[in-house]
Amino acid sequence: MDVLAVLNLGDLAQAFSKMGMFPVFDVAYYIVSILYLKYEPGSVEVSRKSPVASWLCAMLYCFGSYILADIMLGGSPVDYFQHNSHILLASAIWYLIFYCPLNLFYKCVAFLPVKLVLVALKEVVRTRKIAAGVHHAHHAYHHGYFIMVIVGYVKGSGVALISNFEQLLRGVWRPETNEILNMSFPTKASLYGAILFTMQEAHWLPVSRSMLIIVFTLFMATSKVWMTARHSHSSPFALIESWICHVLFRSPLGGSEEAHHHPPAASAPSSLKSKEELSEGARKRKAKKAE
Amino acid sequence: MDVLAVLNLGDLAQAFSKMGMFPVFDVAYYIVSILYLKYEPGSVEVSRKSPVASWLCAMLYCFGSYILADIMLGGSPVDYFQHNSHILLASAIWYLIFYCPLNLFYKCVAFLPVKLVLVALKEVVRTRKIAAGVHHAHHAYHHGYFIMVIVGYVKGSGVALISNFEQLLRGVWRPETNEILNMSFPTKASLYGAILFTMQEAHWLPVSRSMLIIVFTLFMATSKVWMTARHSHSSPFALIESWICHVLFRSPLGGSEEAHHHPPAASAPSSLKSKEELSEGARKRKAKKAE
Amino acid sequence: MDVLAVLNLGDLAQAFSKMGMFPVFDVAYYIVSILYLKYEPGSVEVSRKSPVASWLCAMLYCFGSYILADIMLGGSPVDYFQHNSHILLASAIWYLIFYCPLNLFYKCVAFLPVKLVLVALKEVVRTRKIAAGVHHAHHAYHHGYFIMVIVGYVKGSGVALISNFEQLLRGVWRPETNEILNMSFPTKASLYGAILFTMQEAHWLPVSRSMLIIVFTLFMATSKVWMTARHSHSSPFALIESWICHVLFRSPLGGSEEAHHHPPAASAPSSLKSKEELSEGARKRKAKKAE
Repeated sequence: MDVLAVLNLGDLAQAFSKMGMFPVFDVAYYIVSILYLKYEPGSVEVSRKSPVASWLCAMLYCFGSYILADIMLGGSPVDYFQHNSHILLASAIWYLIFYCPLNLFYKCVAFLPVKLVLVALKEVVRTRKIAAGVHHAHHAYHHGYFIMVIVGYVKGSGVALISNFEQLLRGVWRPETNEILNMSFPTKASLYGAILFTMQEAHWLPVSRSMLIIVFTLFMATSKVWMTARHSHSSPFALIESWICHVLFRSPLGGSEEAHHHPPAASAPSSLKSKEELSEGARKRKAKKAE
Repeated sequence: MDVLAVLNLGDLAQAFSKMGMFPVFDVAYYIVSILYLKYEPGSVEVSRKSPVASWLCAMLYCFGSYILADIMLGGSPVDYFQHNSHILLASAIWYLIFYCPLNLFYKCVAFLPVKLVLVALKEVVRTRKIAAGVHHAHHAYHHGYFIMVIVGYVKGSGVALISNFEQLLRGVWRPETNEILNMSFPTKASLYGAILFTMQEAHWLPVSRSMLIIVFTLFMATSKVWMTARHSHSSPFALIESWICHVLFRSPLGGSEEAHHHPPAASAPSSLKSKEELSEGARKRKAKKAE
Repeated sequence: MDVLAVLNLGDLAQAFSKMGMFPVFDVAYYIVSILYLKYEPGSVEVSRKSPVASWLCAMLYCFGSYILADIMLGGSPVDYFQHNSHILLASAIWYLIFYCPLNLFYKCVAFLPVKLVLVALKEVVRTRKIAAGVHHAHHAYHHGYFIMVIVGYVKGSGVALISNFEQLLRGVWRPETNEILNMSFPTKASLYGAILFTMQEAHWLPVSRSMLIIVFTLFMATSKVWMTARHSHSSPFALIESWICHVLFRSPLGGSEEAHHHPPAASAPSSLKSKEELSEGARKRKAKKAE
């Protein structure tokens, strides 16, 4: 108890959960998001051919979570665009990543040590968004637990949930997969996070909101940094998930893992991998080729 | 007149139109809707591989009409999800239909006599939804007759109108057809029902609302039970519709019927049939194979 | 100065910007819009086979700008459908264009001199819509400059921005292109117009709103009449745009023009041309063949 008193974990969590996100954390969020857009095959060509489409995609990557949450709660989808400074900042980063001479900015932020820091900062923003989304939905629907989970989920997942339509904007159409059918780690974690924050909001979880924020942030940042550093896309939930799905939903045990290791020849393996799970090495090579 | 006085049809209609739908009728609605989802090719595989996608589709099947009507009137699309008991009930039925050991629940509710009762109960809910949708739109737009028809229509048709996007969620994309291009019987009947209820609401029809509800319910329930029992998908409107379309819209006389009987070899015939029109026998065989 | 005083340009602009659009200008807008729908390959077959789908497409062509603007500002997408007289008028024109005996009405309005007048009148409505959209958004978000541009843009472009989904309604799916990737002249001009009107609304432009309306209307009407008369789709912005895009966004100089003249053999060239840019001659031939 003495150690805890010295650390004063509660106060630390409180301070952490009140810390402003603008501009440092938001900038990291925008950089990593638009970096993922540049990794998408064909996105560099689109940025040359149609800057408006490229800018719109970048905005969806940066503000997709706000757009979706506003739609879910019946508001204006472009409501967040009233924050001119955020939009200008994200636009500047989009410009630097796609059009900077000698590709300098891209090379800096895609440099692994720098990127690991940015990825960690992005997860701080993601956790905050989930918590804010659940809280906002709780305000609108006091006992709408499903609505809280849904809004928290879309706040955490953002553009990934509408990736089919974001791709359509760039002239790409891959209907055989989507983020609900093949959830990537961040989407899954957002769902679990939204459930946890909803339980906290409903007082079914004996922890304070700020404590949950700091714990979930640490988990997300560690996982994503580890996955980015290792170029891995194996989820930390894989084992327990596969077991629960087998018992509850009669899913084949470990089937999805095997399917990943031995993809069927008929289907294009690349199209089965979701955006954020593509190994970093492969992505960089693709992005470089596209230059 | 004496017989009518004894029957007191007006009072009966009044009582019928005030009868609560929850839980008996709603349960029937959920069961039949999710049954149709299970009949969809590939839906059982999706339920094994991605329970979240399967659950979302089931929710669209059960609450698609509320989601669409809320969107049409500018509200939150997930507004109805505040009714936790309805969502939990529908989720339980989804679980039983897809994951019940030995497929027991599915076998019970797909047993024809049971199913005929459930189908009849579902049509009671559908008629109520159309009437409520028109009434709701009338409240928001006093002279918006087109809006009343549209809202009543989407309330009656539900997920069928967005079947392209519901299929996309399951990784299926069939752009060559949709429920507007090839209307099934329930969608057509919902449109006609919405027009009738709008005319009643505008006092152009000399009947009371409760009387219209009971008459339309009887028509819908009889038609759907007859069609389900006969594994038929010929609409009772076919003859008069084909004649009116020929005169007003220069459609080829009886052409659509012939096209159904001799489908062109080039196009996949199954993809031309709409969800609710597929003959029951063929569906069951498909669903069984997928087990 | 004396000449200006005699002309009293300010008063003229004021009067012009206050002139009612209903019914003359609106009728021209509906006629030209539904004419473009009839030019679309396959739309005549759809009108024979499924009048409801054809009517819905016609409504999207006529009122798509209102639907999109209402969605953007969080309102009901069918809000404009409360104006029964507008809907009935547009429906009558849809009926006349698609089903008039001997195709008389179509032949009259597609007759080039008549069409040129109608096209000019349509541009008057378009400019008004952009100005109204920006003004409306300014009312809702006082400093939301991005929102003003977006709302003005969708008000000016209308159905073109959702052409992928409008085509889907008719059973056509062409994901490889869209109006953001390959902007046609009216879409581009709407974007520039929305930016100009936003700058005017923010008092960054030293002109009055009515003056900007009259100048922009003249520019749009002249350009569109010229392009329609010449069956041309070369934009008046092409030269300066290609130069700016080359400097700012590293687009290949004049590349897009060349690509148009020598389309790659692999892709269908027709699918690359956007709706409003297809040469008038080719369209008429297509529409005639479809009769």
